[in-house]
Amino acid sequence: MTYAAGRHFLQIPGPTNVPDPVLRAMSAPTIDHRGPEFQGLALELLHDIRPVFGTTNPVIIYPATGTGAWEAALRNTLSAGDAVLSFETGHFATLWQEMARGLGLEVDFVPGDWRHGADPGVVAERLAADTARRIKAVCVVHNETSTGVVSRIPEIRAAIDAAEHPALLLVDTISSLGSIDYRHDEWGVDVTVAGSQKGLMLPPGMSFNAVSDKALAASRDAGLRSTFFDWSPMLAANERGFFPYTPNTNLLYGLREALRLLYDEGLPNVFARHARHAEATRAAVRGWGLEVLCLDEREHSGSLTAVLVPDGVDADKIRGVVLDRFDMSLGAGLGRLAGKVFRIGHLGSFNDLTLAGTLAGVQMGLNLSGVPAGPAGMEAALERLQAD
Amino acid sequence: MTYAAGRHFLQIPGPTNVPDPVLRAMSAPTIDHRGPEFQGLALELLHDIRPVFGTTNPVIIYPATGTGAWEAALRNTLSAGDAVLSFETGHFATLWQEMARGLGLEVDFVPGDWRHGADPGVVAERLAADTARRIKAVCVVHNETSTGVVSRIPEIRAAIDAAEHPALLLVDTISSLGSIDYRHDEWGVDVTVAGSQKGLMLPPGMSFNAVSDKALAASRDAGLRSTFFDWSPMLAANERGFFPYTPNTNLLYGLREALRLLYDEGLPNVFARHARHAEATRAAVRGWGLEVLCLDEREHSGSLTAVLVPDGVDADKIRGVVLDRFDMSLGAGLGRLAGKVFRIGHLGSFNDLTLAGTLAGVQMGLNLSGVPAGPAGMEAALERLQAD
Amino acid sequence: MTYAAGRHFLQIPGPTNVPDPVLRAMSAPTIDHRGPEFQGLALELLHDIRPVFGTTNPVIIYPATGTGAWEAALRNTLSAGDAVLSFETGHFATLWQEMARGLGLEVDFVPGDWRHGADPGVVAERLAADTARRIKAVCVVHNETSTGVVSRIPEIRAAIDAAEHPALLLVDTISSLGSIDYRHDEWGVDVTVAGSQKGLMLPPGMSFNAVSDKALAASRDAGLRSTFFDWSPMLAANERGFFPYTPNTNLLYGLREALRLLYDEGLPNVFARHARHAEATRAAVRGWGLEVLCLDEREHSGSLTAVLVPDGVDADKIRGVVLDRFDMSLGAGLGRLAGKVFRIGHLGSFNDLTLAGTLAGVQMGLNLSGVPAGPAGMEAALERLQAD
Amino acid sequence: MTYAAGRHFLQIPGPTNVPDPVLRAMSAPTIDHRGPEFQGLALELLHDIRPVFGTTNPVIIYPATGTGAWEAALRNTLSAGDAVLSFETGHFATLWQEMARGLGLEVDFVPGDWRHGADPGVVAERLAADTARRIKAVCVVHNETSTGVVSRIPEIRAAIDAAEHPALLLVDTISSLGSIDYRHDEWGVDVTVAGSQKGLMLPPGMSFNAVSDKALAASRDAGLRSTFFDWSPMLAANERGFFPYTPNTNLLYGLREALRLLYDEGLPNVFARHARHAEATRAAVRGWGLEVLCLDEREHSGSLTAVLVPDGVDADKIRGVVLDRFDMSLGAGLGRLAGKVFRIGHLGSFNDLTLAGTLAGVQMGLNLSGVPAGPAGMEAALERLQAD
Repeated sequence: MTYAAGRHFLQIPGPTNVPDPVLRAMSAPTIDHRGPEFQGLALELLHDIRPVFGTTNPVIIYPATGTGAWEAALRNTLSAGDAVLSFETGHFATLWQEMARGLGLEVDFVPGDWRHGADPGVVAERLAADTARRIKAVCVVHNETSTGVVSRIPEIRAAIDAAEHPALLLVDTISSLGSIDYRHDEWGVDVTVAGSQKGLMLPPGMSFNAVSDKALAASRDAGLRSTFFDWSPMLAANERGFFPYTPNTNLLYGLREALRLLYDEGLPNVFARHARHAEATRAAVRGWGLEVLCLDEREHSGSLTAVLVPDGVDADKIRGVVLDRFDMSLGAGLGRLAGKVFRIGHLGSFNDLTLAGTLAGVQMGLNLSGVPAGPAGMEAALERLQAD
Repeated sequence: MTYAAGRHFLQIPGPTNVPDPVLRAMSAPTIDHRGPEFQGLALELLHDIRPVFGTTNPVIIYPATGTGAWEAALRNTLSAGDAVLSFETGHFATLWQEMARGLGLEVDFVPGDWRHGADPGVVAERLAADTARRIKAVCVVHNETSTGVVSRIPEIRAAIDAAEHPALLLVDTISSLGSIDYRHDEWGVDVTVAGSQKGLMLPPGMSFNAVSDKALAASRDAGLRSTFFDWSPMLAANERGFFPYTPNTNLLYGLREALRLLYDEGLPNVFARHARHAEATRAAVRGWGLEVLCLDEREHSGSLTAVLVPDGVDADKIRGVVLDRFDMSLGAGLGRLAGKVFRIGHLGSFNDLTLAGTLAGVQMGLNLSGVPAGPAGMEAALERLQAD
Repeated sequence: MTYAAGRHFLQIPGPTNVPDPVLRAMSAPTIDHRGPEFQGLALELLHDIRPVFGTTNPVIIYPATGTGAWEAALRNTLSAGDAVLSFETGHFATLWQEMARGLGLEVDFVPGDWRHGADPGVVAERLAADTARRIKAVCVVHNETSTGVVSRIPEIRAAIDAAEHPALLLVDTISSLGSIDYRHDEWGVDVTVAGSQKGLMLPPGMSFNAVSDKALAASRDAGLRSTFFDWSPMLAANERGFFPYTPNTNLLYGLREALRLLYDEGLPNVFARHARHAEATRAAVRGWGLEVLCLDEREHSGSLTAVLVPDGVDADKIRGVVLDRFDMSLGAGLGRLAGKVFRIGHLGSFNDLTLAGTLAGVQMGLNLSGVPAGPAGMEAALERLQAD
Repeated sequence: MTYAAGRHFLQIPGPTNVPDPVLRAMSAPTIDHRGPEFQGLALELLHDIRPVFGTTNPVIIYPATGTGAWEAALRNTLSAGDAVLSFETGHFATLWQEMARGLGLEVDFVPGDWRHGADPGVVAERLAADTARRIKAVCVVHNETSTGVVSRIPEIRAAIDAAEHPALLLVDTISSLGSIDYRHDEWGVDVTVAGSQKGLMLPPGMSFNAVSDKALAASRDAGLRSTFFDWSPMLAANERGFFPYTPNTNLLYGLREALRLLYDEGLPNVFARHARHAEATRAAVRGWGLEVLCLDEREHSGSLTAVLVPDGVDADKIRGVVLDRFDMSLGAGLGRLAGKVFRIGHLGSFNDLTLAGTLAGVQMGLNLSGVPAGPAGMEAALERLQAD
């Protein structure tokens, strides 16, 4: 039996459901990227994008995806042979670390259990030990998309400061920006890496580097540079509302609309909405008798929830049932979590009743996959949503 | 607290949620309605629209809404002073009857309790009594949008036949076509009235008359005719793929896409999907301890469910809470049911998880409005959806 | 050789090229037509539509095409047997008159040569002769879409006033509204009939009646009424931002955007733009050695230009060549002008270079059809466009 | 005086006018890039993209712009210190060469006058002289977007072959692919670099590398690699219909539609259309008494025409007048041609009447800028278009 009618439930932790007005905005005709109309658009966007990062500094917009913005962060600030401190918080932290190694950086990759964020205590230790100041950067994934665990950036910043260490702080916010409270300036982040297709509610294809003055200074000596990712000509051209090469104009139209939606709702409301939906989701997971992957109450993600399935059950089989029977996409376990978890995305343009439908689909999918879930999960989630 | 993010749940019994591909199809540039491209489109549509009505006869497409198609049905077949038999099955049957009176027809309006369909036994009686054959038409609303009750057209047809009475059978399928099994030819209907904005999954603005040969014959002598609604020039122009006046081209684009979606799913699957969602909805209503308005098991609607609220409760207050808190529109009680029922639309482009979200919203809305609903409703609905 | 690439040139005198933002606006999801969001939209539109008609009185919006609005104007103001004065200015005036006859009105249809507007002198004559005040309405087509001739409404009004005759003045502005200066209130028009698909830059499917107080008063006794077209419940529901039956919501979205575009440009600028393009077009026609159908300099249309082809040439053959070779639709000769003229639409969302492309297509099409046109037409048109 | 009504004429040599169906296709909801529906789309596209490149080998699709694809071509095939032969055919050849230098390559940049393509004779000379086989790649821009000059790739290939030199042949087809005949396999190209926003009729944001087996072999030892641009994981993931990181799904929707349009028209027809429009444009330029920048009849571009303005005239002033008065964007002179030429883009989704409008705008703009152009240009262009 197919369920082709109705809307697909895209409940992976990104790409997220793009709001209709954003899709419509993106379908406007492409304009001359060297003309005055484009210039007006670009100046507006380069200004308006800043609050969502919590910065008054420049934000660089790449016509590329998040992987590109990761590479940009490393290439613009570091040179071959530089040491980097990084944390195995999950699949994406692992990939970023692999990229760093591939670029010739020397990575101290602190092992982890994929159920906790980066440990500020370890940051303190390693930096204190680095009396030669060989570590040039600390790389942290704010919200691990593969685990639903949030690293505590302010505490990591405090640890760096306490060590009086000059290392740059590079943070991946790909699945947190626009969903979970984040403050580039206040938290003293040097490069914030982000993408379009999660909390920003856009299709994939656009990514970002928010940069501190310290990062800009470091970029002058960085030796890994790439023309495509180079900050310097980008910032120079951006000053006048242009780009050093053809920008992806139609995604910029979408960005304008997405920012309008975010600011209309109000960032604090956006963050509260995500947190509330995450709470309801965790209530459901507990109601089903299952375990949330994240082990530290301080580190639960507002964007997604990774759910451990019982031993002997294949999480991907559950996902298959949910897709076939209920036309909903859930996130797969990645890397060492393959088959062990499924991930529920509850980020982006999302509301209570879509969450209710999502959790109903998970509950029924569990039952149909031989993981009797009972009604208590749904009940608990609705109680939470009903409460306030 | 506002919930602007995410998609609005439009769960009134029409207009229904228009599928994205239909909206996209409608945004194509308007073309010359006298040119060969339009001609190809029109010939295709005038052919392809027929199966959804269950007819091989012509279907007339009006650039007007359902009220217009009602008027067209009466004006093309009847003359001032003609007698018409009609049934008070609900608000829309009452409105149609008022229109008939306004046009100078003499209406025998059989009273009803708004909880049952038209009674085939009464049809038999009245026609038998009409030895003078003054009754020229029997008007029935197939699915009463105001009550969620389906009149049994085949039994009514059988009653007319048994009486050997020549009256035309005019049927309003505005909220059933494309949702509930319907067969213009097989059931011997003379004029089927329909609209675009329900089971056909289009925006409002287009309506239909499917016509039998007998209706066409009657139209030659009908005295209420209107230029805008006249079948005769329409059918003549349609033969060659044109219209006697400017058609609403962009809705025709949408119709092509909507028919494609319906036929891809398969009409029997479409009807089964609606019936299944209606069952799950009634299971929820019972679980909440509330009463479905429709009293006859044979007459439950696949399109919508009208729910009686307890005495002393204002159904519109519940609807207000649901709209404010959960961004969902439910149908109001109409006419004599105002404040006494709310209506859940589960028709058109719709699927299991959207129904789950819908019912979750109703359950929470009831609880928040002082009508303690408990979790049993949701639980029963999910059991039904999970079953097959 | 096909020319499928690029945009079709839709240069019929309507439907016109719908601006992209209007098409995008129309593709927003349909909303509950009984909810507060719709109410806000409707109240806004019912207010904002008035200036384009030059009225502060109500404008009725029908989910129907222009033919429907014609019928509405007659049905709401007149009764069977009433006398009406009407002018044979072209195909559409003839059709409207036929409709009036079909409704049982007694029409005095003043013959015309299809190359002039309605003669104010004849209006004066006929009304003066009507000492019994039997004539209840004077019906005039402002811009005859079939001929490109504009009737001088203020002079006709003056003639009625001079005769001190109580007849209503009903004016069809289907192809002039939003393109040619028009003033419902200032010119003392009683019912203005209009449609969506010309100067209003929308797809077809919406039409209008602007009504004077005198027309409203007349409507109380009118005997031709129709439920679908009835002003009275419409005006009552409109007061609160609703409609007596389902409105065509998505076209209303388009109307909001189209009005925004018109008012942003400024109505006087819109009219000047149309007049200038019409001048350039007539310059081209003269340059080709052909004749403009309209014979009176005071009556040239800003919306379209009808061009007489030489004797022995089939205008439809030229249109066919232009469509096949240059992917442009031109308007056909209608009624008695079939094959004798083609019509160039230069109305709606239109600019200089699109006009240049249009005229280039006509010039090449003439040459390829054995009507040697030479380059002087194009040259003259560009001179006009270049001048100011 | 503003001309906001109508469609903007985007006649820069890219981004080009995106066809409406492509924009509509791109506005479909984003789907799960790890699910079966995406997989089907990707497998289809990775197969169907090949003919437009004239290859049966893999084509890599980057979620990046053309500059990224340039960098990808160099990084995947070369190592720091490698020698590269390159030709100063214009602005973009200069930029690509600068990028190569920035990556640590040693570039032999053969000077040019920006009015000719790369000289096959010089290729022969330099490769013959390179007895040490230090040159690892010959980089050529097929169609110089800054000049409208096409380098003769088959003759360059022949020169490499004649020299029996193992250098790779890297060709930039950013403004020729899908507009000018091009054959990756037949012409023995090793890496073809392309972008979405020109002949492919898509918005910017997607770029391509078509790769020969020899290029793939070279990539195994290349030392400049980047994670984002790495061919190897891309090809591995593509095999199964996936990407190593999030692809830009909505542009892929657009690509599917754009390829459908191109193949429906037929690539030979597409190339002939562009060539014919280029001929008509050159006829116009000559008619205005101006000079086409390209000096070799064998090297005229089908995509764009660069027009030299008379001494003492600022080409950008003309462009400004054309934009202000006629709402058309023309391409600016770039680099050493700034102010000396303007460029007319006649590529992508384009037809005769849009070209006529474009040339009319240029002609009027010249006249209004004090460069009397006379009517002969327009006349000559229309004669060409009319001819066949």
